[in-house]
Amino acid sequence: MSYFPNVEKIKYEGVGTKNKFAFRHYNPEEVIMGKTMKEHLRFAVAYWHTMTQDGSDPFGNPTNIRNWFGDTPMETAKNRVDAFFEFLVKMDVEYFCFHDIDIAPEGNSLEEFFANIDTITDLIKEKMDETGIKLLWNTANMFSHPRFNNGAASSNNAEVFAYAAAQVKKGLDVSKKLGGENYVFWGGREGYESLLNTDMKLEQDNIARLFKMAIAYGEKIGHKPQFLLEPKPKEPSKHQYDFDAATTVAFIQKYGLEGDFKLNLEANHATLAGHTFEHELNVARCYEALGSIDANQGDLLLGWDTDEFPTNVMDTSLAMYEILENDGIAPGGINFDAKVRRSSFEMDDLVLAHIAGMDTYARGLKVAAKLKEDRFLDEIKEERYASYTIGIGKNIIDGKEDLETLTTYALENDQVELESSHLEYVKSLLNDYLV
Amino acid sequence: MSYFPNVEKIKYEGVGTKNKFAFRHYNPEEVIMGKTMKEHLRFAVAYWHTMTQDGSDPFGNPTNIRNWFGDTPMETAKNRVDAFFEFLVKMDVEYFCFHDIDIAPEGNSLEEFFANIDTITDLIKEKMDETGIKLLWNTANMFSHPRFNNGAASSNNAEVFAYAAAQVKKGLDVSKKLGGENYVFWGGREGYESLLNTDMKLEQDNIARLFKMAIAYGEKIGHKPQFLLEPKPKEPSKHQYDFDAATTVAFIQKYGLEGDFKLNLEANHATLAGHTFEHELNVARCYEALGSIDANQGDLLLGWDTDEFPTNVMDTSLAMYEILENDGIAPGGINFDAKVRRSSFEMDDLVLAHIAGMDTYARGLKVAAKLKEDRFLDEIKEERYASYTIGIGKNIIDGKEDLETLTTYALENDQVELESSHLEYVKSLLNDYLV
Amino acid sequence: MSYFPNVEKIKYEGVGTKNKFAFRHYNPEEVIMGKTMKEHLRFAVAYWHTMTQDGSDPFGNPTNIRNWFGDTPMETAKNRVDAFFEFLVKMDVEYFCFHDIDIAPEGNSLEEFFANIDTITDLIKEKMDETGIKLLWNTANMFSHPRFNNGAASSNNAEVFAYAAAQVKKGLDVSKKLGGENYVFWGGREGYESLLNTDMKLEQDNIARLFKMAIAYGEKIGHKPQFLLEPKPKEPSKHQYDFDAATTVAFIQKYGLEGDFKLNLEANHATLAGHTFEHELNVARCYEALGSIDANQGDLLLGWDTDEFPTNVMDTSLAMYEILENDGIAPGGINFDAKVRRSSFEMDDLVLAHIAGMDTYARGLKVAAKLKEDRFLDEIKEERYASYTIGIGKNIIDGKEDLETLTTYALENDQVELESSHLEYVKSLLNDYLV
Amino acid sequence: MSYFPNVEKIKYEGVGTKNKFAFRHYNPEEVIMGKTMKEHLRFAVAYWHTMTQDGSDPFGNPTNIRNWFGDTPMETAKNRVDAFFEFLVKMDVEYFCFHDIDIAPEGNSLEEFFANIDTITDLIKEKMDETGIKLLWNTANMFSHPRFNNGAASSNNAEVFAYAAAQVKKGLDVSKKLGGENYVFWGGREGYESLLNTDMKLEQDNIARLFKMAIAYGEKIGHKPQFLLEPKPKEPSKHQYDFDAATTVAFIQKYGLEGDFKLNLEANHATLAGHTFEHELNVARCYEALGSIDANQGDLLLGWDTDEFPTNVMDTSLAMYEILENDGIAPGGINFDAKVRRSSFEMDDLVLAHIAGMDTYARGLKVAAKLKEDRFLDEIKEERYASYTIGIGKNIIDGKEDLETLTTYALENDQVELESSHLEYVKSLLNDYLV
Repeated sequence: MSYFPNVEKIKYEGVGTKNKFAFRHYNPEEVIMGKTMKEHLRFAVAYWHTMTQDGSDPFGNPTNIRNWFGDTPMETAKNRVDAFFEFLVKMDVEYFCFHDIDIAPEGNSLEEFFANIDTITDLIKEKMDETGIKLLWNTANMFSHPRFNNGAASSNNAEVFAYAAAQVKKGLDVSKKLGGENYVFWGGREGYESLLNTDMKLEQDNIARLFKMAIAYGEKIGHKPQFLLEPKPKEPSKHQYDFDAATTVAFIQKYGLEGDFKLNLEANHATLAGHTFEHELNVARCYEALGSIDANQGDLLLGWDTDEFPTNVMDTSLAMYEILENDGIAPGGINFDAKVRRSSFEMDDLVLAHIAGMDTYARGLKVAAKLKEDRFLDEIKEERYASYTIGIGKNIIDGKEDLETLTTYALENDQVELESSHLEYVKSLLNDYLV
Repeated sequence: MSYFPNVEKIKYEGVGTKNKFAFRHYNPEEVIMGKTMKEHLRFAVAYWHTMTQDGSDPFGNPTNIRNWFGDTPMETAKNRVDAFFEFLVKMDVEYFCFHDIDIAPEGNSLEEFFANIDTITDLIKEKMDETGIKLLWNTANMFSHPRFNNGAASSNNAEVFAYAAAQVKKGLDVSKKLGGENYVFWGGREGYESLLNTDMKLEQDNIARLFKMAIAYGEKIGHKPQFLLEPKPKEPSKHQYDFDAATTVAFIQKYGLEGDFKLNLEANHATLAGHTFEHELNVARCYEALGSIDANQGDLLLGWDTDEFPTNVMDTSLAMYEILENDGIAPGGINFDAKVRRSSFEMDDLVLAHIAGMDTYARGLKVAAKLKEDRFLDEIKEERYASYTIGIGKNIIDGKEDLETLTTYALENDQVELESSHLEYVKSLLNDYLV
Repeated sequence: MSYFPNVEKIKYEGVGTKNKFAFRHYNPEEVIMGKTMKEHLRFAVAYWHTMTQDGSDPFGNPTNIRNWFGDTPMETAKNRVDAFFEFLVKMDVEYFCFHDIDIAPEGNSLEEFFANIDTITDLIKEKMDETGIKLLWNTANMFSHPRFNNGAASSNNAEVFAYAAAQVKKGLDVSKKLGGENYVFWGGREGYESLLNTDMKLEQDNIARLFKMAIAYGEKIGHKPQFLLEPKPKEPSKHQYDFDAATTVAFIQKYGLEGDFKLNLEANHATLAGHTFEHELNVARCYEALGSIDANQGDLLLGWDTDEFPTNVMDTSLAMYEILENDGIAPGGINFDAKVRRSSFEMDDLVLAHIAGMDTYARGLKVAAKLKEDRFLDEIKEERYASYTIGIGKNIIDGKEDLETLTTYALENDQVELESSHLEYVKSLLNDYLV
Repeated sequence: MSYFPNVEKIKYEGVGTKNKFAFRHYNPEEVIMGKTMKEHLRFAVAYWHTMTQDGSDPFGNPTNIRNWFGDTPMETAKNRVDAFFEFLVKMDVEYFCFHDIDIAPEGNSLEEFFANIDTITDLIKEKMDETGIKLLWNTANMFSHPRFNNGAASSNNAEVFAYAAAQVKKGLDVSKKLGGENYVFWGGREGYESLLNTDMKLEQDNIARLFKMAIAYGEKIGHKPQFLLEPKPKEPSKHQYDFDAATTVAFIQKYGLEGDFKLNLEANHATLAGHTFEHELNVARCYEALGSIDANQGDLLLGWDTDEFPTNVMDTSLAMYEILENDGIAPGGINFDAKVRRSSFEMDDLVLAHIAGMDTYARGLKVAAKLKEDRFLDEIKEERYASYTIGIGKNIIDGKEDLETLTTYALENDQVELESSHLEYVKSLLNDYLV
C-alpha cells in the first residue's frame, strides 16, 4: 500500500517544470565546490511535524487529513513507520529525526512505553537497513506530559528528574541501536513560568547533572553521539534557560561540557530571541559549537514559533554561507523542523512543503557557494580589517602592546580617519547573487 | 552662587507632605534589616544625564533649560562641577558616576583632552574631599565620536583600538586619583551594524585583549577597581556583543576574565533584551557576577532605550529582593542612569525626578525586606523543592545516581503527581506587600 | 452534589485575613462614589476558561483536574451547568458569558448542535431564574472547527458564511431567550494567514454583510442586544481585521454600523497590538464606542495571548479610571477572559484566581475613585490645556480662526514658552494612590 | 562648481557592469505594461536625508562628510539648492520632497524664517524651471523645535497651534508657488508622551480643526494639492495618533475628511506598527486612500525607525504589486525617505544608496508586472473565492439572503469541505519570479 499514491520519487526538473512534484533547484548529485548538494545539505525530515502534527492551534481543532490511522495507537504507530519511510524515499532525503513519543505510544506505564519503543524501533531499523536512510538525531520529549509541567531535569519534583533520566537512557539506547549521529536536548520547559517560585541555580545545576549522567552513560555503552543543546528563548515557558546560542554556551562553559556538547540552532528560535539566524550560526562558530540546524522560518511580526517551511532565499543563503565557513555541518545536518500551514492540510502538502524547503536551501547553497568562489565578502572583510595585519594593529594582535605603549601611539596618531563601509552598495551587489 | 536656588537639602517628610522637594519614602538613616537605607541603596547620580543631557531626540532639538553654560567649554565644564556637587549634596546622595567626555571637553587633540580631564578632576577631587561624596565608577565614552563609528576595541581600524586604549589608561589613572570603586565598560558600538562585513571572532578577541591590558595596568599602578561590563542588546549598534547578562558571562568565561569582571546591569537594557530586570539580576547571581546596577525603567511597548526614572514599585521591589539575596551590592551601587522626560525640561525636574527614583527604590527596599522577613518567597521555594532534600532527590543532588539507577527508580515510580503552584494566589498576596 | 466542596460563598474579610477563600479588597456592597462596588464592576465569569479550558498549550497536554466529566458529552455539558452556577453563586458574581460550543456539544450535524443548545439553555435559564444571575453576553465560536480555517464571514467559501450565519441566528435566539444584554463578535480567523491569496476588500465587505443581517434579525425578533466587536491584532491568524480599537472603529464607520456596534476591549489584546489597555479604552471613549471589557493581563515580554488573571494594580487602576470617566460601563461589564496558569491545575485554583482578579479590580476601582475625588488628573489636565479656554485658544475651539488670522497672530507671538510637565513628579505622586 | 565631481549622470548599464555609478536594474525608458519605468515609479529624493541628515544618532556625533557648508546658514542653504539639483539631475530623478526647515534656516523670528523660505524657494523655482524637476510634496516640520515638545495642532498650548497654522499656510503658499502635487502632514509629536496628562479627544479635535483650515485655505488660494497623512505608530512620541493606515482612516472618516485626505505610507512605519508594508498598502486601497509612499526599509529585529534604503527585492515586489493593483500611484510617488547608514558617510554614498534603492524598486516593478501578466495571484484568488460567484455565495453578495434563509441552507449543507491553500507551494513558485 502507498500512503502517497500521487507522488513518484521527486526528481530535479529545473525551474521550467510544470510538475509540482519536482525539484526546481535541488539537484542532489550536482557538484558544488567539490561536493554534491546532497553531501552539503544533509537534509533530514522531522517525524513530529510530518507524522503527528495535526494542524491544531490554541484556538482551533485539528485540520490535517492523514491516511495512516489504525484501530489502535500501536497500529497507527506502525503505519506511520511505513508511511514515513515511503515519504523519505520519495523525497530523496538521507536523514530523519524524532522524539520518543513521536514514534511510539506512551501507554499506561513507563514499562509499556519502553516496550512500544522497542517494537517500533525494530521496524525502523529494518526500514533503515532496507533504504540506507540514517538517523540524524533522536531526542526525548520531556515537555508535553503533565508531569513535565515544571520542567524535566529542572522540575521541582525529583521523581520527574528520575523519569526524565529514564527517557534519556532509553534515548541513548535507541541511538546506539539505530546508529544515531547526534542526540538533542531541547528544554521546552527547562525554564520558568514565574521567577517568584523558582530557584534558578538549583534548576540549572540539576540540568547539568542530567547531562553529565548522559555523557557517562554514553561512555559506558560505547556510543557517544554528538550531544546538542537547542536554544529557544521562550514558549512554552515564559523563559527557557537555553535562551540563545551565547546563553547556552555560557551554561556549557560553566559546567565544563565543552567537549561533549554543541548547539542545534533553529532559525525561528533565533528570531524569537531577537537575532538573525546567521548571527546565531556565527556566534556558534566563534565558540566552536556549531552542531546542527533546524531549518524553518518564523514571521518576524509574530511573537510565537510558527515553524514555517523556509522559503526566504536570502535567509538560507546567509545560513549556508555560515555553514560553508564552518567547513560543513557534519555530523549535523539540516533538519526541517517545519510544519505545513494549517490551511495546507492535505497529504500532498507534506510533499510540496518539503520540496519548497529543499529548493530554498538548494538556492541558498548555490548563492553561498558563488559568494565564496567570488570571495565577495572575504575581500570586503580583508580590506576592512587590513590594519590588523601590519604595524600597530599587528602588534596588538601579537600581544606586543599595552595601555602605556598604545597611549604613546595614540597621542601621536589621534586624528584617525575611517573609510566608508558603502553598506548600501554592498547590499545591492549582494542582491544580484540571488538570481 | 547656587544652581538650584529653589531647593534646600532634600529631607524625608513622609507620604503626607505637601512639599514637592522632599522624600516621601526614602529616609536615609532608617534602619532596615540591620542597615540604614543609605547603606543598602548606595545611590549614585549620573553626570551625563544630569549635567550634559540636553533633551534632544532623533526628531527634535534640545529642550532642557540649564543655567551652567559659560563662555568657553572649559568654563562650562567647571560650572558643571560646582552645580553637580551642589546637586549631590542637596539630594543627599553619596556616589556619582561619569564618562570622561561628560566632565571635560575633548578639545582638538588627545593631549588637550587629557589636560582638560586633569584640570577638571582636580576640581572634582577637591569637591569630593569637601563633601565626602565618592566615585562609584567612571568610564570612557568610546562610542560618540565618529572615530568609534565601527566600535572601539572592536573597530576594524587598529588606530581606533589604540585611541581607546589610551582613554582606558586615562580612565584608570582617574579612577586611582579619585578612589573609584568600580570601572565600567559599556560597549555601545562594540557590536555590528551588518554581519556582512564583520569578523565577529576577531572583534571579540580584540575586546578581550583590551580588557586584559586594563587588568594588567591596574595591577601595575596598584589600583584595581572592580571591572564591570554593562550588557545591552542593541542601540546604537544593530547588535551589541554584550547582549544580556548570560551572553556577557559567556564572553567573560571564554577569555578567563571571571576573577576581574562582573556585570553592571540596567533595567531598561534587560527589557530591550527580552528579560525582566529581576531575571538579569538572578542570572548574574547564579554566575556570581552581580556587580552594580543602572537604575531606570523602559517602556515595554517601545523598542528603544527610554532611560526613564524608575517609578514602578513592583519592579524595584523585585530588583531589591535580588540585591538582598545577594547580601547587598557593594562595592557596586544604584546609579540613576535615567533622564528626565523631554517635557520635564526645567532645572527643578532634575531634583523631582531623582526624588521619584529614590523614593521608588526606597519603597522597593521596604517591600523586599518585608518579603525576606516574612520568608514569603523563601517558604514557597522551600516547599516547592522539598523533594530534593530527601530520598531520591537528595541522592541526585549528592551525585549518587546515574541513568541506570534512575531508570530502575522511574520504572517503579512512574505515576508522578505534581502540586499546583497556585500562582495567581501568590501574586495576589504579593500585591499586599506593595502597601 | 458540590463541585467545589472546599469552598463556601466567598466573603469580604479584608487584608488581614488568613482565609485564602476570601476577598481581601472586593467588598460587593461597599459604596464608592455613590454606587456599590458590585454596581461599578459588573463582574462576569467566562464559561470557556472556567469550564472547558484544559491546561493544554501548543507543546503540552491537558493538565487541569476537573470533576464534572460524565459518560457522554451531553452529560458533561449538563454537569458543567450545575458546576458553573455553583461557582457563580459562590464567587458572588452577577454575570456570565459564553460561546455556543462552550455550553453544548456540536454533535454530528448543525441540527444536533442546535438541539443540544436548546437543551442546555433550558437548564441555564432555570439556573438563572433560580439565582438571579444574568447573561452579560454570548457569542458563537466561529474559529475552532476546521471549516473556519479561512474565517467565518470572511471565509473564501460561501457555505462557511452560511454556516456562520446560522450560528449567529441561533446566538441571537439564545440571547433573547436568556435576556442577554450584549452580543459579541470576536473574529479569531476573520483575517488572513497570507495576503498573497487574500481579497481583503471582499472579505471585509462580507463581514459587514453578516453584521447587517444580525442587526436586521435582532430587529425582527424584537431583541437587540448591544453588539460588540472585540479587537485583537493577531493569533490565531497572522493578521486579524479588528486589529485594535481604532482599526475596528474605521470598519464600523465605513459600513455605517455606529448605531449598533461598540467595542469589547481586552487588556491582553491591547498590549499585543502595541497599546496600553487604558489607551484602548480612551480611544473607544473618544469614538463613543466603549462597550464592555475582557479583564485579563498579558506578559509584555511574550508575543502571544497569555490571558492571565489581572494582578497588576496600577493597570486596573488606570482601566477603572477610564471606566469612571465613561460614567460606567453598563450594559457592558468586566468579564474575566482569563485562564489559570498551566501549573495552577486544581479546582481550587479557579476560585483563587477569580478572587485575585476581583480583588485587583476592586483595588483599581478604589484607586480610580480616589483619583477622581481628589481631581488629581483632572486638575493637571485643566491647567495644562488652560490656553484653550481663553483668547486665541478659545477662538480656535470656537471656529473663529483660520490660517490667515492665525498667521497674523503667530508672527506677533512667535516666542512661545511651554511649561514643564513634571512627569516624574506626577508619576511619583500617582504611586502614593496605590496604597 | 560640482558637488559630486566623481559622478556623471547615472545610466542604465545592466547587471554585468563594473561601474558602481550605474543602474543595474532601473532603466528609465524601458516600457513595462505600457508605461515607462519612470512613469511607473515616479521617484523622489528627500531633501532632509540627502541634504541635512548628518549621521548622528542618540549615542553619537555627526559622521557625514558634506561639502556644501558655507559661512552662514543662508549661504549653506543656497549651496544646498545647487547641490540638490545637481544630485537630482545626475540621479535622473523627476521629483523631490522637503520640509520647510530643510531648505531654509529658521532664524530668530517667524518673519525671518518666512523671508528665508521666500529667498530659497525663488532659487528652487529657478532650478525647477531649468531642469523640469517637479515637487512631489512639501510639508512643515512641526516636531523638531522645542515649542513642539507637546505637539503642534495637538499641543496643549494654543500659541503653538497658531504657530503651526502659520507654517501650514506658508507651506501651502510654497506649494502653489512650486506647483506641488501633494502636501503631507506627518504628526511626529501629534500624540502623547503620557496618557496621564493628555486629553486625547481635545487634541484630535484640534488636529482636525487645523486640517479643515488647510482645506479652506487651499480652496481660497485656488491650489489644492492632494493632502496626505503619514501614519507612524510611535517615535518620537510614545504614541502617535496616526498609528497606522486603518487608525488614520478612522480619524479621516470621523472628521469627514475623505474627500481631501489620503495616506502617505512608509515601509518602516508599517513594520513598527506590526504590519507588512503590503498590508498597509492594501488597507489603504480598501479605503480608497492610497496616496503616496515613503520608500525605505526597517530592521524587524530593531524597535526604532532605521530608515534604510530599500534593498529587499521581495518587499519591493509586493509593494509594487499593490501599486499596480491601484492603477499606479499618481499624483503620489515613491519618495526615498531613507538615510545612508552611519558608516556610509561619504558623499558618494548618497549616490550609491539611491542607486541601490532605485534598482531595488525597479526589480520590484519587474517582478510585480510579471506576476500581473501571468495572472499568478489573480488566478489563485479567483479560484479561491469562486463560491461567491454562483449559488448561495452570489446570493450573499447580491443581498438576497438573511440569517433565516442562510440557516435553512446551512442545516442542509453542514458538511462543508475546504480545499488546501498549498501555501508553501505558492511561496516557492513566487520565489522563481525574483530572478
